[in-house]
Amino acid sequence: MKDVMKVYQVQSKVCTRKEDTLNAVSWWMEKAAAAGADLVALPEMFGCPYDTAAFPKYAEAVGGPLWRRCADLAKAYGMYLSAGSMPELGLGGKIYNTAYVFDRQGHQIARHRKMHLFDIHVDGGQQFRESDTLTPGNDVTVFDTEFGRMGLCICYDIRFPELARLMALAKARVVLVPAAFNMTTGPAHWELTFRARALDNQMFYLGTAPARDRTASYRSWGHSIAVDPWGTVLAQLEEGEDAQLVTLDLKRVSAIRRQLPLLQHRREDCYKLEAL
Amino acid sequence: MKDVMKVYQVQSKVCTRKEDTLNAVSWWMEKAAAAGADLVALPEMFGCPYDTAAFPKYAEAVGGPLWRRCADLAKAYGMYLSAGSMPELGLGGKIYNTAYVFDRQGHQIARHRKMHLFDIHVDGGQQFRESDTLTPGNDVTVFDTEFGRMGLCICYDIRFPELARLMALAKARVVLVPAAFNMTTGPAHWELTFRARALDNQMFYLGTAPARDRTASYRSWGHSIAVDPWGTVLAQLEEGEDAQLVTLDLKRVSAIRRQLPLLQHRREDCYKLEAL
Repeated sequence: MKDVMKVYQVQSKVCTRKEDTLNAVSWWMEKAAAAGADLVALPEMFGCPYDTAAFPKYAEAVGGPLWRRCADLAKAYGMYLSAGSMPELGLGGKIYNTAYVFDRQGHQIARHRKMHLFDIHVDGGQQFRESDTLTPGNDVTVFDTEFGRMGLCICYDIRFPELARLMALAKARVVLVPAAFNMTTGPAHWELTFRARALDNQMFYLGTAPARDRTASYRSWGHSIAVDPWGTVLAQLEEGEDAQLVTLDLKRVSAIRRQLPLLQHRREDCYKLEAL
Repeated sequence: MKDVMKVYQVQSKVCTRKEDTLNAVSWWMEKAAAAGADLVALPEMFGCPYDTAAFPKYAEAVGGPLWRRCADLAKAYGMYLSAGSMPELGLGGKIYNTAYVFDRQGHQIARHRKMHLFDIHVDGGQQFRESDTLTPGNDVTVFDTEFGRMGLCICYDIRFPELARLMALAKARVVLVPAAFNMTTGPAHWELTFRARALDNQMFYLGTAPARDRTASYRSWGHSIAVDPWGTVLAQLEEGEDAQLVTLDLKRVSAIRRQLPLLQHRREDCYKLEAL
Protein backbone atom coordinates (compact mmCIF):
# COMPACT_ATOMS: atom_id res chain seq x y z
CA MET A 1 0.00 0.00 0.00
CA LYS A 2 1.44 3.36 -1.02
CA ASP A 3 1.63 6.04 1.64
CA VAL A 4 2.23 9.16 -0.39
CA MET A 5 -0.51 10.38 -2.73
CA LYS A 6 -0.48 13.45 -4.95
CA VAL A 7 -3.92 14.88 -5.47
CA TYR A 8 -4.70 17.53 -8.05
CA GLN A 9 -7.79 19.48 -7.06
CA VAL A 10 -9.48 21.24 -9.96
CA GLN A 11 -11.57 24.30 -9.15
CA SER A 12 -13.05 24.58 -12.62
CA LYS A 13 -15.73 26.84 -14.04
CA VAL A 14 -19.02 25.18 -14.81
CA CYS A 15 -19.80 25.20 -18.54
CA THR A 16 -23.39 25.19 -19.71
CA ARG A 17 -22.66 23.21 -22.92
CA LYS A 18 -21.75 19.57 -22.37
CA GLU A 19 -19.29 19.65 -25.25
CA ASP A 20 -17.38 22.41 -23.48
CA THR A 21 -17.31 20.34 -20.29
CA LEU A 22 -15.92 17.34 -22.14
CA ASN A 23 -13.13 19.49 -23.54
CA ALA A 24 -12.45 21.15 -20.20
CA VAL A 25 -12.06 17.81 -18.43
CA SER A 26 -9.55 16.71 -21.07
CA TRP A 27 -7.62 19.96 -20.64
CA TRP A 28 -7.49 19.64 -16.84
CA MET A 29 -6.43 15.99 -17.00
CA GLU A 30 -3.52 16.94 -19.17
CA LYS A 31 -2.50 19.63 -16.68
CA ALA A 32 -2.81 17.18 -13.80
CA ALA A 33 -0.71 14.57 -15.55
CA ALA A 34 1.98 17.14 -16.23
CA ALA A 35 1.94 18.01 -12.53
CA GLY A 36 2.52 14.37 -11.61
CA ALA A 37 -0.84 13.71 -9.96
CA ASP A 38 -1.92 10.27 -8.78
CA LEU A 39 -5.53 11.35 -8.41
CA VAL A 40 -7.52 14.20 -9.93
CA ALA A 41 -10.51 15.61 -8.07
CA LEU A 42 -13.29 17.53 -9.81
CA PRO A 43 -16.05 19.63 -8.19
CA GLU A 44 -19.67 18.86 -7.40
CA MET A 45 -21.86 19.23 -10.51
CA PHE A 46 -18.82 20.26 -12.52
CA GLY A 47 -20.67 19.96 -15.82
CA CYS A 48 -24.10 21.26 -14.92
CA PRO A 49 -25.41 24.54 -13.52
CA TYR A 50 -26.25 24.08 -9.85
CA ASP A 51 -29.97 24.61 -10.34
CA THR A 52 -32.75 22.13 -9.64
CA ALA A 53 -34.31 22.75 -13.07
CA ALA A 54 -31.01 21.93 -14.78
CA PHE A 55 -30.41 18.57 -13.08
CA PRO A 56 -32.95 16.57 -15.16
CA LYS A 57 -31.80 18.25 -18.38
CA TYR A 58 -28.14 17.42 -17.85
CA ALA A 59 -28.65 14.01 -16.28
CA GLU A 60 -27.12 10.98 -17.93
CA ALA A 61 -27.09 7.30 -17.01
CA VAL A 62 -23.92 5.46 -16.06
CA GLY A 63 -22.00 5.07 -19.34
CA GLY A 64 -23.25 8.40 -20.74
CA PRO A 65 -21.00 10.84 -22.60
CA LEU A 66 -19.51 12.65 -19.59
CA TRP A 67 -19.11 9.44 -17.60
CA ARG A 68 -17.44 7.84 -20.64
CA ARG A 69 -15.08 10.75 -21.19
CA CYS A 70 -13.99 10.58 -17.55
CA ALA A 71 -13.40 6.82 -17.71
CA ASP A 72 -11.42 7.18 -20.93
CA LEU A 73 -9.26 9.99 -19.60
CA ALA A 74 -8.48 8.15 -16.37
CA LYS A 75 -7.23 5.26 -18.48
CA ALA A 76 -5.44 7.42 -21.04
CA TYR A 77 -3.43 9.25 -18.38
CA GLY A 78 -3.22 6.33 -15.92
CA MET A 79 -4.51 8.47 -13.05
CA TYR A 80 -7.30 7.98 -10.55
CA LEU A 81 -10.16 10.37 -11.28
CA SER A 82 -12.73 11.51 -8.75
CA ALA A 83 -15.17 12.77 -11.36
CA GLY A 84 -16.80 15.27 -9.01
CA SER A 85 -20.49 14.76 -9.23
CA MET A 86 -23.01 14.89 -12.04
CA PRO A 87 -26.75 14.40 -12.27
CA GLU A 88 -27.31 10.68 -12.76
CA LEU A 89 -30.37 9.36 -14.54
CA GLY A 90 -31.36 6.24 -12.64
CA LEU A 91 -34.07 3.63 -12.93
CA GLY A 92 -37.60 4.93 -13.23
CA GLY A 93 -36.37 8.34 -14.32
CA LYS A 94 -35.04 9.22 -10.87
CA ILE A 95 -32.26 11.79 -10.78
CA TYR A 96 -29.39 11.58 -8.29
CA ASN A 97 -26.46 13.85 -7.46
CA THR A 98 -23.79 11.22 -8.04
CA ALA A 99 -20.03 11.10 -7.54
CA TYR A 100 -17.94 8.55 -9.45
CA VAL A 101 -14.35 7.47 -9.02
CA PHE A 102 -12.35 5.77 -11.79
CA ASP A 103 -9.07 3.93 -11.34
CA ARG A 104 -5.94 4.12 -13.47
CA GLN A 105 -7.44 1.60 -15.89
CA GLY A 106 -10.60 3.66 -16.30
CA HIS A 107 -12.77 1.29 -14.29
CA GLN A 108 -15.48 2.79 -12.10
CA ILE A 109 -14.47 1.78 -8.56
CA ALA A 110 -16.90 3.95 -6.57
CA ARG A 111 -20.28 5.56 -6.97
CA HIS A 112 -21.81 7.72 -4.26
CA ARG A 113 -25.27 9.15 -4.55
CA LYS A 114 -25.65 12.20 -2.30
CA MET A 115 -27.30 10.93 0.86
CA HIS A 116 -28.39 14.22 2.42
CA LEU A 117 -30.25 16.50 0.04
CA PHE A 118 -29.60 20.21 0.40
CA ASP A 119 -32.84 21.92 1.36
CA ILE A 120 -32.18 25.16 3.19
CA HIS A 121 -33.85 28.51 3.61
CA VAL A 122 -31.67 30.99 5.46
CA ASP A 123 -33.46 34.27 6.25
CA GLY A 124 -31.85 36.91 4.05
CA GLY A 125 -29.38 34.33 2.75
CA GLN A 126 -29.17 31.17 0.68
CA GLN A 127 -32.25 29.19 -0.32
CA PHE A 128 -32.24 25.93 -2.27
CA ARG A 129 -34.27 22.72 -2.51
CA GLU A 130 -32.43 19.83 -4.12
CA SER A 131 -35.33 17.57 -3.25
CA ASP A 132 -37.47 19.34 -5.84
CA THR A 133 -35.82 17.25 -8.56
CA LEU A 134 -33.34 14.88 -6.88
CA THR A 135 -33.66 11.55 -5.11
CA PRO A 136 -31.19 10.79 -2.30
CA GLY A 137 -28.84 7.81 -2.19
CA ASN A 138 -28.84 5.45 0.77
CA ASP A 139 -25.29 4.15 1.06
CA VAL A 140 -22.10 4.99 2.91
CA THR A 141 -19.37 4.81 0.26
CA VAL A 142 -15.82 3.58 0.74
CA PHE A 143 -13.53 2.00 -1.86
CA ASP A 144 -10.07 0.50 -2.16
CA THR A 145 -7.11 1.90 -4.05
CA GLU A 146 -3.35 1.41 -4.15
CA PHE A 147 -3.32 4.10 -1.41
CA GLY A 148 -5.61 2.08 0.83
CA ARG A 149 -9.25 2.67 1.53
CA MET A 150 -10.90 5.99 0.80
CA GLY A 151 -14.32 7.51 1.41
CA LEU A 152 -16.57 9.58 -0.80
CA CYS A 153 -19.43 11.95 -0.03
CA ILE A 154 -20.92 15.08 -1.56
CA CYS A 155 -21.16 18.63 -0.18
CA TYR A 156 -24.07 18.74 2.32
CA ASP A 157 -23.26 15.14 3.31
CA ILE A 158 -20.25 16.57 5.16
CA ARG A 159 -22.57 18.31 7.62
CA PHE A 160 -23.45 14.98 9.21
CA PRO A 161 -20.89 13.62 11.66
CA GLU A 162 -22.49 10.19 11.54
CA LEU A 163 -21.51 9.67 7.91
CA ALA A 164 -17.92 10.79 8.51
CA ARG A 165 -17.61 8.48 11.48
CA LEU A 166 -18.99 5.53 9.55
CA MET A 167 -16.38 6.08 6.84
CA ALA A 168 -13.65 6.22 9.49
CA LEU A 169 -14.93 3.05 11.14
CA ALA A 170 -14.90 1.44 7.68
CA LYS A 171 -11.13 2.21 7.64
CA ALA A 172 -11.01 5.10 5.17
CA ARG A 173 -7.89 7.27 5.50
CA VAL A 174 -8.86 9.93 2.96
CA VAL A 175 -12.32 11.32 2.17
CA LEU A 176 -13.05 13.01 -1.14
CA VAL A 177 -15.81 15.62 -1.08
CA PRO A 178 -16.94 17.24 -4.31
CA ALA A 179 -18.81 20.23 -2.93
CA ALA A 180 -20.20 23.69 -3.60
CA PHE A 181 -20.89 25.72 -0.51
CA ASN A 182 -22.37 29.17 -1.17
CA MET A 183 -21.90 32.79 -0.15
CA THR A 184 -23.89 32.28 3.07
CA THR A 185 -22.57 28.96 4.34
CA GLY A 186 -19.13 29.18 2.73
CA PRO A 187 -17.60 31.95 4.83
CA ALA A 188 -19.42 30.73 7.94
CA HIS A 189 -18.90 26.97 7.80
CA TRP A 190 -16.75 25.60 4.96
CA GLU A 191 -13.30 25.54 6.54
CA LEU A 192 -14.70 24.81 10.00
CA THR A 193 -16.57 21.74 8.83
CA PHE A 194 -13.73 20.25 6.80
CA ARG A 195 -11.30 20.79 9.66
CA ALA A 196 -13.68 19.31 12.22
CA ARG A 197 -14.43 16.14 10.23
CA ALA A 198 -10.74 15.62 9.54
CA LEU A 199 -9.75 16.14 13.16
CA ASP A 200 -12.55 14.16 14.79
CA ASN A 201 -11.93 11.17 12.58
CA GLN A 202 -8.22 11.68 12.01
CA MET A 203 -8.46 11.36 8.26
CA PHE A 204 -7.52 13.56 5.32
CA TYR A 205 -10.48 15.53 3.99
CA LEU A 206 -10.40 17.04 0.51
CA GLY A 207 -13.14 19.41 -0.61
CA THR A 208 -13.19 20.33 -4.30
CA ALA A 209 -15.53 23.13 -5.39
CA PRO A 210 -16.35 24.87 -8.66
CA ALA A 211 -14.99 28.35 -9.32
CA ARG A 212 -17.33 31.20 -8.48
CA ASP A 213 -19.50 32.46 -11.32
CA ARG A 214 -20.95 35.83 -10.38
CA THR A 215 -23.62 35.47 -13.06
CA ALA A 216 -24.92 32.12 -11.75
CA SER A 217 -28.08 31.86 -9.66
CA TYR A 218 -26.09 29.79 -7.12
CA ARG A 219 -22.71 31.32 -6.41
CA SER A 220 -20.06 28.87 -5.25
CA TRP A 221 -17.79 29.75 -2.35
CA GLY A 222 -14.90 28.01 -4.11
CA HIS A 223 -12.00 27.64 -1.64
CA SER A 224 -11.16 24.04 -2.55
CA ILE A 225 -9.43 22.71 0.52
CA ALA A 226 -7.21 19.91 1.83
CA VAL A 227 -7.07 19.19 5.57
CA ASP A 228 -4.84 16.73 7.39
CA PRO A 229 -5.81 14.35 10.25
CA TRP A 230 -4.69 16.91 12.88
CA GLY A 231 -7.24 19.39 11.51
CA THR A 232 -4.60 21.55 9.83
CA VAL A 233 -5.36 23.14 6.45
CA LEU A 234 -2.69 21.92 4.01
CA ALA A 235 -3.85 24.02 1.08
CA GLN A 236 -6.83 26.16 0.13
CA LEU A 237 -7.66 28.04 -3.07
CA GLU A 238 -9.52 31.33 -3.33
CA GLU A 239 -12.69 31.72 -5.41
CA GLY A 240 -11.48 31.85 -9.01
CA GLU A 241 -10.72 29.15 -11.56
CA ASP A 242 -7.57 27.44 -10.35
CA ALA A 243 -6.07 24.12 -9.28
CA GLN A 244 -3.72 22.87 -6.59
CA LEU A 245 -1.49 19.84 -6.22
CA VAL A 246 -1.48 18.51 -2.65
CA THR A 247 0.86 15.80 -1.40
CA LEU A 248 -0.70 13.61 1.29
CA ASP A 249 1.56 11.71 3.67
CA LEU A 250 -0.87 8.97 4.59
CA LYS A 251 1.31 7.64 7.40
CA ARG A 252 0.13 10.72 9.33
CA VAL A 253 -3.18 8.94 9.90
CA SER A 254 -1.73 6.12 11.96
CA ALA A 255 0.83 8.43 13.62
CA ILE A 256 -1.87 10.79 14.88
CA ARG A 257 -4.19 7.97 15.90
CA ARG A 258 -1.39 6.53 18.00
CA GLN A 259 -0.68 9.82 19.80
CA LEU A 260 -4.32 10.87 20.28
CA PRO A 261 -6.30 7.62 20.09
CA LEU A 262 -9.75 9.08 19.50
CA LEU A 263 -11.20 6.13 17.63
CA GLN A 264 -9.89 3.72 20.24
CA HIS A 265 -11.36 5.89 23.04
CA ARG A 266 -14.89 5.81 21.65
CA ARG A 267 -17.18 4.36 24.32
CA GLU A 268 -18.76 1.59 22.32
CA ASP A 269 -20.23 0.26 25.54
CA CYS A 270 -22.14 3.56 26.04
CA TYR A 271 -23.32 4.39 22.53
CA LYS A 272 -23.65 2.66 19.23
CA LEU A 273 -23.47 4.03 15.71
CA GLU A 274 -24.21 1.76 12.79
CA ALA A 275 -25.09 1.92 9.12
CA LEU A 276 -28.48 0.37 8.43
CA MET B 1 -39.55 28.47 29.63
CA LYS B 2 -37.16 31.43 29.65
CA ASP B 3 -35.30 32.18 26.45
CA VAL B 4 -32.59 34.55 27.65
CA MET B 5 -29.92 33.24 29.98
CA LYS B 6 -26.98 35.11 31.43
CA VAL B 7 -24.01 32.87 32.06
CA TYR B 8 -20.99 33.95 34.06
CA GLN B 9 -17.95 31.89 33.08
CA VAL B 10 -15.22 31.87 35.72
CA GLN B 11 -11.68 31.21 34.53
CA SER B 12 -10.26 30.85 38.00
CA LYS B 13 -6.84 29.85 39.23
CA VAL B 14 -6.61 26.43 40.80
CA CYS B 15 -5.73 26.60 44.51
CA THR B 16 -3.86 23.74 46.11
CA ARG B 17 -5.48 24.22 49.56
CA LYS B 18 -9.14 23.28 49.72
CA GLU B 19 -9.86 26.11 52.14
CA ASP B 20 -8.61 28.60 49.56
CA THR B 21 -10.86 27.02 46.94
CA LEU B 22 -13.90 27.31 49.23
CA ASN B 23 -13.16 31.01 49.70
CA ALA B 24 -12.49 31.57 46.02
CA VAL B 25 -15.83 30.05 45.02
CA SER B 26 -17.62 32.34 47.47
CA TRP B 27 -15.77 35.34 46.05
CA TRP B 28 -16.63 34.47 42.44
CA MET B 29 -20.28 33.80 43.29
CA GLU B 30 -20.57 37.27 44.78
CA LYS B 31 -19.04 38.75 41.61
CA ALA B 32 -21.41 36.74 39.42
CA ALA B 33 -24.44 37.81 41.41
CA ALA B 34 -23.40 41.45 41.12
CA ALA B 35 -23.13 40.95 37.35
CA GLY B 36 -26.70 39.65 37.20
CA ALA B 37 -25.89 36.07 36.25
CA ASP B 38 -28.51 33.34 36.04
CA LEU B 39 -25.91 30.59 35.91
CA VAL B 40 -22.29 30.47 37.01
CA ALA B 41 -19.88 28.07 35.31
CA LEU B 42 -16.65 26.91 36.93
CA PRO B 43 -13.74 25.05 35.26
CA GLU B 44 -12.79 21.39 35.16
CA MET B 45 -11.00 20.36 38.37
CA PHE B 46 -11.27 23.91 39.66
CA GLY B 47 -10.21 22.92 43.18
CA CYS B 48 -7.58 20.29 42.48
CA PRO B 49 -4.29 20.29 40.57
CA TYR B 50 -4.77 18.53 37.25
CA ASP B 51 -2.49 15.65 38.09
CA THR B 52 -3.41 11.99 38.36
CA ALA B 53 -1.68 11.69 41.72
CA ALA B 54 -3.73 14.57 43.13
CA PHE B 55 -7.15 13.22 42.16
CA PRO B 56 -7.39 10.60 44.96
CA LYS B 57 -6.03 13.07 47.54
CA TYR B 58 -8.58 15.77 46.72
CA ALA B 59 -11.52 13.46 46.03
CA GLU B 60 -14.64 13.83 48.12
CA ALA B 61 -17.98 12.04 48.06
CA VAL B 62 -21.22 13.76 47.13
CA GLY B 63 -22.00 15.99 50.13
CA GLY B 64 -18.33 16.69 50.88
CA PRO B 65 -17.05 20.15 51.83
CA LEU B 66 -16.60 21.57 48.32
CA TRP B 67 -19.83 20.04 47.06
CA ARG B 68 -21.62 21.48 50.14
CA ARG B 69 -20.14 24.95 49.69
CA CYS B 70 -21.32 24.98 46.06
CA ALA B 71 -24.84 23.88 46.97
CA ASP B 72 -25.02 26.49 49.74
CA LEU B 73 -23.79 29.30 47.52
CA ALA B 74 -26.21 28.43 44.72
CA LYS B 75 -29.03 28.73 47.24
CA ALA B 76 -27.65 31.81 48.97
CA TYR B 77 -27.39 33.76 45.72
CA GLY B 78 -30.35 32.09 43.98
CA MET B 79 -28.27 31.26 40.91
CA TYR B 80 -27.69 28.06 39.00
CA LEU B 81 -24.16 26.79 39.54
CA SER B 82 -22.28 24.49 37.20
CA ALA B 83 -19.69 23.52 39.77
CA GLY B 84 -17.06 22.68 37.16
CA SER B 85 -15.72 19.29 37.97
CA MET B 86 -14.03 17.80 41.00
CA PRO B 87 -12.63 14.37 41.84
CA GLU B 88 -15.52 12.35 43.22
CA LEU B 89 -14.97 9.52 45.67
CA GLY B 90 -17.48 6.87 44.67
CA LEU B 91 -18.42 3.41 45.89
CA GLY B 92 -15.55 0.99 46.36
CA GLY B 93 -13.04 3.81 46.48
CA LYS B 94 -13.37 4.56 42.79
CA ILE B 95 -12.47 8.10 41.73
CA TYR B 96 -14.37 9.93 38.98
CA ASN B 97 -13.90 13.29 37.27
CA THR B 98 -17.37 14.58 38.07
CA ALA B 99 -19.34 17.69 37.11
CA TYR B 100 -22.29 18.81 39.24
CA VAL B 101 -25.00 21.37 38.59
CA PHE B 102 -27.05 22.97 41.36
CA ASP B 103 -30.28 24.91 40.90
CA ARG B 104 -31.31 28.20 42.49
CA GLN B 105 -32.45 26.33 45.58
CA GLY B 106 -29.10 24.59 45.94
CA HIS B 107 -30.39 21.20 44.84
CA GLN B 108 -28.10 19.02 42.74
CA ILE B 109 -29.93 18.63 39.43
CA ALA B 110 -27.17 17.04 37.36
CA ARG B 111 -24.11 14.91 37.83
CA HIS B 112 -21.87 13.90 34.94
CA ARG B 113 -18.93 11.59 35.37
CA LYS B 114 -16.42 12.10 32.56
CA MET B 115 -17.16 9.38 30.04
CA HIS B 116 -13.99 9.55 27.93
CA LEU B 117 -10.80 9.50 29.96
CA PHE B 118 -7.95 11.60 28.70
CA ASP B 119 -5.04 9.34 27.82
CA ILE B 120 -2.79 10.93 25.24
CA HIS B 121 0.85 10.86 24.31
CA VAL B 122 1.72 13.42 21.65
CA ASP B 123 5.31 13.14 20.39
CA GLY B 124 7.14 16.20 21.69
CA GLY B 125 3.88 17.51 23.20
CA GLN B 126 1.32 16.75 25.88
CA GLN B 127 1.21 13.43 27.71
CA PHE B 128 -1.37 12.44 30.32
CA ARG B 129 -3.13 9.30 31.56
CA GLU B 130 -6.31 10.01 33.51
CA SER B 131 -7.02 6.30 33.57
CA ASP B 132 -4.10 5.80 35.97
CA THR B 133 -6.34 6.92 38.84
CA LEU B 134 -9.80 7.65 37.42
CA THR B 135 -12.79 5.50 36.51
CA PRO B 136 -15.01 6.67 33.63
CA GLY B 137 -18.72 7.39 33.87
CA ASN B 138 -21.16 5.67 31.56
CA ASP B 139 -24.03 8.11 31.09
CA VAL B 140 -25.07 10.84 28.69
CA THR B 141 -26.17 13.73 30.91
CA VAL B 142 -29.01 16.16 30.25
CA PHE B 143 -31.10 18.03 32.80
CA ASP B 144 -34.01 20.45 32.95
CA THR B 145 -33.97 24.06 34.07
CA GLU B 146 -36.18 27.13 33.77
CA PHE B 147 -34.23 27.73 30.52
CA GLY B 148 -35.17 24.36 29.11
CA ARG B 149 -33.03 21.29 28.80
CA MET B 150 -29.26 21.49 29.00
CA GLY B 151 -26.40 19.05 28.52
CA LEU B 152 -23.22 18.50 30.49
CA CYS B 153 -19.91 16.89 29.60
CA ILE B 154 -16.26 17.32 30.56
CA CYS B 155 -13.27 18.35 28.46
CA TYR B 156 -12.11 15.33 26.43
CA ASP B 157 -15.76 14.22 26.18
CA ILE B 158 -16.21 17.05 23.65
CA ARG B 159 -13.93 15.24 21.21
CA PHE B 160 -16.61 12.64 20.55
CA PRO B 161 -19.35 13.71 18.13
CA GLU B 162 -21.55 10.85 19.24
CA LEU B 163 -21.98 12.29 22.73
CA ALA B 164 -22.80 15.77 21.41
CA ARG B 165 -25.35 14.34 19.02
CA LEU B 166 -26.99 12.27 21.73
CA MET B 167 -27.39 15.40 23.89
CA ALA B 168 -28.94 17.23 20.92
CA LEU B 169 -31.30 14.35 20.21
CA ALA B 170 -32.24 14.44 23.90
CA LYS B 171 -33.36 18.07 23.27
CA ALA B 172 -30.57 20.00 24.98
CA ARG B 173 -30.23 23.60 23.76
CA VAL B 174 -27.10 24.50 25.74
CA VAL B 175 -24.15 22.29 26.65
CA LEU B 176 -21.87 23.15 29.56
CA VAL B 177 -18.30 21.88 29.27
CA PRO B 178 -15.92 22.34 32.18
CA ALA B 179 -12.61 21.73 30.43
CA ALA B 180 -8.86 22.21 30.48
CA PHE B 181 -7.17 21.81 27.14
CA ASN B 182 -3.39 22.19 27.20
CA MET B 183 -0.61 23.97 25.33
CA THR B 184 -0.54 21.29 22.61
CA THR B 185 -4.23 20.68 21.96
CA GLY B 186 -5.46 24.14 22.99
CA PRO B 187 -4.07 26.21 20.12
CA ALA B 188 -4.68 23.37 17.65
CA HIS B 189 -8.18 22.21 18.57
CA TRP B 190 -10.00 24.11 21.33
CA GLU B 191 -11.92 26.72 19.34
CA LEU B 192 -12.35 24.39 16.36
CA THR B 193 -13.96 21.69 18.43
CA PHE B 194 -16.33 23.95 20.35
CA ARG B 195 -17.43 25.66 17.14
CA ALA B 196 -17.92 22.35 15.34
CA ARG B 197 -20.04 20.77 18.07
CA ALA B 198 -22.17 23.90 18.36
CA LEU B 199 -22.67 24.16 14.61
CA ASP B 200 -23.27 20.49 13.86
CA ASN B 201 -25.87 20.20 16.60
CA GLN B 202 -27.13 23.79 16.52
CA MET B 203 -26.78 24.29 20.25
CA PHE B 204 -24.91 26.73 22.45
CA TYR B 205 -21.61 25.32 23.69
CA LEU B 206 -19.85 26.85 26.70
CA GLY B 207 -16.34 25.79 27.61
CA THR B 208 -15.01 26.96 30.97
CA ALA B 209 -11.32 26.42 31.70
CA PRO B 210 -8.97 27.20 34.57
CA ALA B 211 -6.51 30.07 34.23
CA ARG B 212 -3.04 29.13 33.11
CA ASP B 213 -0.52 28.43 35.85
CA ARG B 214 2.98 28.45 34.40
CA THR B 215 4.30 26.56 37.41
CA ALA B 216 1.85 23.66 37.08
CA SER B 217 2.82 20.33 35.55
CA TYR B 218 -0.26 20.57 33.30
CA ARG B 219 -0.64 24.02 31.82
CA SER B 220 -4.20 24.98 30.88
CA TRP B 221 -4.90 26.68 27.58
CA GLY B 222 -7.56 28.83 29.27
CA HIS B 223 -9.60 30.62 26.57
CA SER B 224 -13.00 29.98 28.17
CA ILE B 225 -15.40 30.19 25.27
CA ALA B 226 -19.06 30.59 24.34
CA VAL B 227 -20.27 29.55 20.88
CA ASP B 228 -23.73 29.99 19.38
CA PRO B 229 -25.70 27.46 17.29
CA TRP B 230 -24.40 28.97 14.01
CA GLY B 231 -20.85 28.16 15.12
CA THR B 232 -19.99 31.78 15.91
CA VAL B 233 -17.77 32.58 18.90
CA LEU B 234 -19.77 34.91 21.16
CA ALA B 235 -16.99 35.49 23.68
CA GLN B 236 -13.59 34.07 24.52
CA LEU B 237 -11.13 34.90 27.27
CA GLU B 238 -7.34 34.79 27.04
CA GLU B 239 -5.23 32.68 29.38
CA GLY B 240 -5.20 34.62 32.66
CA GLU B 241 -7.56 34.64 35.64
CA ASP B 242 -10.70 36.37 34.44
CA ALA B 243 -14.44 35.96 33.95
CA GLN B 244 -17.01 36.83 31.31
CA LEU B 245 -20.76 37.35 31.32
CA VAL B 246 -22.41 35.97 28.19
CA THR B 247 -26.05 36.51 27.28
CA LEU B 248 -27.57 33.58 25.40
CA ASP B 249 -30.63 34.18 23.22
CA LEU B 250 -31.97 30.63 23.29
CA LYS B 251 -34.54 31.32 20.58
CA ARG B 252 -31.58 31.23 18.19
CA VAL B 253 -31.62 27.43 18.50
CA SER B 254 -35.04 26.98 16.94
CA ALA B 255 -34.49 29.84 14.47
CA ILE B 256 -31.32 28.26 13.09
CA ARG B 257 -32.79 24.76 13.06
CA ARG B 258 -35.68 26.09 10.97
CA GLN B 259 -33.40 27.74 8.39
CA LEU B 260 -30.81 24.95 8.19
CA PRO B 261 -32.67 21.84 9.37
CA LEU B 262 -29.67 19.61 10.08
CA LEU B 263 -31.29 17.47 12.74
CA GLN B 264 -34.36 16.96 10.58
CA HIS B 265 -32.17 16.01 7.60
CA ARG B 266 -30.37 13.22 9.45
CA ARG B 267 -30.89 9.99 7.50
CA GLU B 268 -32.28 7.84 10.28
CA ASP B 269 -33.17 5.25 7.65
CA CYS B 270 -29.47 4.93 6.70
CA TYR B 271 -27.72 5.08 10.07
CA LYS B 272 -28.62 4.79 13.67
CA LEU B 273 -27.03 6.33 16.75
CA GLU B 274 -28.25 5.36 20.18
CA ALA B 275 -27.19 5.49 23.79
CA LEU B 276 -26.83 2.01 25.27
